[in-house]
Amino acid sequence: MNYRMISYVLGNILRVEGMLMLPSALVSLYFGERAEFRAFAGVIAFLLIFGTLVEGGEPKEKRIYGREGFVIVSLSWVLMSVFGAMPFFISGSIDGYVNCLFETISGFTTTGASILTEIESLPKGILFWRSFTHWIGGMGILIFMLAILPMGDDRSMYIMRAEAPGPMVSKLVPKVKSTAKGLYMIYIILTFAEIMLLFLGGMPIFDSVVNAFATAGTGGFSIKNASIAAYNNAYFEYVITIFMILFSINFNLFYLLCIRDFKDVFKNEELRFFFAIIALATILITLDISRNYETIEMAFRHAVFQVASVISTTGFVTANFEVWPEFSKTVLVCIMIIGACGGSTGGGIKVSRFIILLKMVLQEIRRIVHPRSVNVIKLDGYRVENDVIHGVTAYLIVYLFLVFASFLLISLDNYDFTTSLTSVLTCMSNVGPGLAKVGPVENFSFFSAFSKIVLCLDMILGRLEIFPIIMLFFPSIWRKGYM
Amino acid sequence: MNYRMISYVLGNILRVEGMLMLPSALVSLYFGERAEFRAFAGVIAFLLIFGTLVEGGEPKEKRIYGREGFVIVSLSWVLMSVFGAMPFFISGSIDGYVNCLFETISGFTTTGASILTEIESLPKGILFWRSFTHWIGGMGILIFMLAILPMGDDRSMYIMRAEAPGPMVSKLVPKVKSTAKGLYMIYIILTFAEIMLLFLGGMPIFDSVVNAFATAGTGGFSIKNASIAAYNNAYFEYVITIFMILFSINFNLFYLLCIRDFKDVFKNEELRFFFAIIALATILITLDISRNYETIEMAFRHAVFQVASVISTTGFVTANFEVWPEFSKTVLVCIMIIGACGGSTGGGIKVSRFIILLKMVLQEIRRIVHPRSVNVIKLDGYRVENDVIHGVTAYLIVYLFLVFASFLLISLDNYDFTTSLTSVLTCMSNVGPGLAKVGPVENFSFFSAFSKIVLCLDMILGRLEIFPIIMLFFPSIWRKGYM
Repeated sequence: MNYRMISYVLGNILRVEGMLMLPSALVSLYFGERAEFRAFAGVIAFLLIFGTLVEGGEPKEKRIYGREGFVIVSLSWVLMSVFGAMPFFISGSIDGYVNCLFETISGFTTTGASILTEIESLPKGILFWRSFTHWIGGMGILIFMLAILPMGDDRSMYIMRAEAPGPMVSKLVPKVKSTAKGLYMIYIILTFAEIMLLFLGGMPIFDSVVNAFATAGTGGFSIKNASIAAYNNAYFEYVITIFMILFSINFNLFYLLCIRDFKDVFKNEELRFFFAIIALATILITLDISRNYETIEMAFRHAVFQVASVISTTGFVTANFEVWPEFSKTVLVCIMIIGACGGSTGGGIKVSRFIILLKMVLQEIRRIVHPRSVNVIKLDGYRVENDVIHGVTAYLIVYLFLVFASFLLISLDNYDFTTSLTSVLTCMSNVGPGLAKVGPVENFSFFSAFSKIVLCLDMILGRLEIFPIIMLFFPSIWRKGYM
Repeated sequence: MNYRMISYVLGNILRVEGMLMLPSALVSLYFGERAEFRAFAGVIAFLLIFGTLVEGGEPKEKRIYGREGFVIVSLSWVLMSVFGAMPFFISGSIDGYVNCLFETISGFTTTGASILTEIESLPKGILFWRSFTHWIGGMGILIFMLAILPMGDDRSMYIMRAEAPGPMVSKLVPKVKSTAKGLYMIYIILTFAEIMLLFLGGMPIFDSVVNAFATAGTGGFSIKNASIAAYNNAYFEYVITIFMILFSINFNLFYLLCIRDFKDVFKNEELRFFFAIIALATILITLDISRNYETIEMAFRHAVFQVASVISTTGFVTANFEVWPEFSKTVLVCIMIIGACGGSTGGGIKVSRFIILLKMVLQEIRRIVHPRSVNVIKLDGYRVENDVIHGVTAYLIVYLFLVFASFLLISLDNYDFTTSLTSVLTCMSNVGPGLAKVGPVENFSFFSAFSKIVLCLDMILGRLEIFPIIMLFFPSIWRKGYM
């Protein structure tokens, strides 16, 4: 384990985080929020100094491998959250450090579950930072760092692999630096496009910016107590629906569109499957809730918005789906678990994993019917390697174990079955709202500090796709020397 | 596909089922229940004649393979249920054919979920048949037939493999006939021991017999509205607890005990894991519910009874666990999904599958930490073959798909999340009670006919471990010719 290199990268992360707080500090300054500005300034100063100390100059031995990649990614997410919560805590805008931490982790992991009961009275700078954490966490702060800092490709691919979501980023990896830059470029352009469309449609500029941040990261923090429903504007709802879907598509596909490779985009199985699920879920829910709304357009608009919001794991709300028929709620829980496409900013198990799992079942059935046949699982026409298949199944199994373990721990708070189970699922999938007491118009404030910490862990496990975090608890990863 | 051989075996099954109804007919006769006796006599006569017609003499070509084994097992369970429901229907003791079918499938699959709101007023012959279906279904009617009918080993192993629960019966298979006889011998001896212990403890003989049937099959049908709680007798509760655990242990282990191979029994990982789960769950629940009961002995007794009842997938009830704290209910839901040991009469995913899944995760983690290491999964010191691992993962995946698909369909009835989800889980695991509206003191009568049919399918899928039933829906299995 190359400890020097780990602290070098972590130190850099902390400094980057400090710099990323600058816009929020400026917002506080602009709106004359003195206490908040002082809080931001103090934390920024601390992060720059502390980060420099941790970094401690360039290490001689720069080689890192998978182990180091996992450790760097896990620790940096933990550190970022611990210090990212500081502005909330120091300014006193959120009570209690556990609540501040929950809100920050919910932000960085792009979950969007909130412990706030009253959002609109918060200072603008704080609201900006809260939404900006979504934007940072969506693409990943490490990928951001890889894009801007001078690091060689050979030692950064392990970091990228550990932070990027979905099972098959390996194809992307070779040119880490240019890839990271390309991804951020697409991310920035799309975010800017959404800001403009919302602003030109009449949304205040501050609202446009923070809502675009929350959409881009597929986060779902809103600056209104009633979420997007507060604007009561069909145009905004359709714009946000479209962008929630765009941000939950594999970013590679945007790159392919840029180089006019339409054939590969069209052939992409994950994309087609993703659209098919969205279409099916929207139709089913529209029919199911049609009696709850005056016009079929309203039913469709709320259905497609909530489907896009849940499958993209954003978690914005335009309708209180808690009062919808049970069937629609079950559909939402199912797509919550499936989640977005790999290589997007969305969470969940990911559509591509879901497709591989489906194909594994079909393969097993073929094997039983024709014992001597040779079966290969293909995706987009390419053979899926055994390593990937093992990774996907191990992911599913450990996901289930963690869901049940968390469910057990949360149920110590003695809230009902639906509340406990859906709060775990919504946190693991980084969605935001669940059902019952954590429903779309509710929040997570009532949980005990213990449950909040369990849910914090679930959010990070979900965002980093479990394994980097689990690694930390295995002694052999901390051994010295190279493998 | 050898169609002649399939109809030959199915015909035999129907005749065997007719003969298995004889004891129930005699009970009806003994208690002077004329309508019920006539119903039984009519169905028996029909099954003997119809069975002989379907059988149609010994076929020349007797070779069968995996495909035929799956088809025989699936169709015979469907046919057995369709005709097994007839006595309930013809005698008029249960209203509506769907309800009769639900009760019969719940019986044969050893689920024990009931649509009856009032049990105690039913005629004795009907109660006997209802409980006897558990006893038949527990070990499997096909294994019974293999034990008594003249069939060669070569063509029956595929039937046994498809009906026996758990992932690894292959070790047992070579001598099907003597194995089937041995299994039934152990089954009969244990059932008889339970009858005697209950009877000598003061339970009426009829009650002792039917309760032993329901325990042996890990079914859970009771002849009292309040289940085992009705007897209000600690001795009965402890006896039944012990036998529920015994019947959910791999029957191979009893065979090993008979030949005094204690070492292999002690070394058995599944058994140790199973006992560890029972001990842990009992301790956790006892602590959690200690405030609900006067003495710690009462809390322990109810805890260990419900843990044994749920993990063995029996479903007997001594306490209304619906009013227990949420943590205890969550523990019960978790062990409901895990289920009993492979090769027992219990249901669920099975402990051995659970162990293999756990080991797969640990292996994947090792693979990530030490990419070049070679990892082999072992169980009881033997290497688990890749085929078994693929089978186990495919099982888990398709289990999850079916749970969610059924959950979606059931939720069309618009009952709450907990009711819909736990009724699917309890039926798939062949347990019986769930939570909320299908809680321990409730029943399944309120569901729509559509939902009841979905749950019937779930019970059969759970009992036959999914794949034999799914096979039926794949056209290629029906193709003529041999493979």
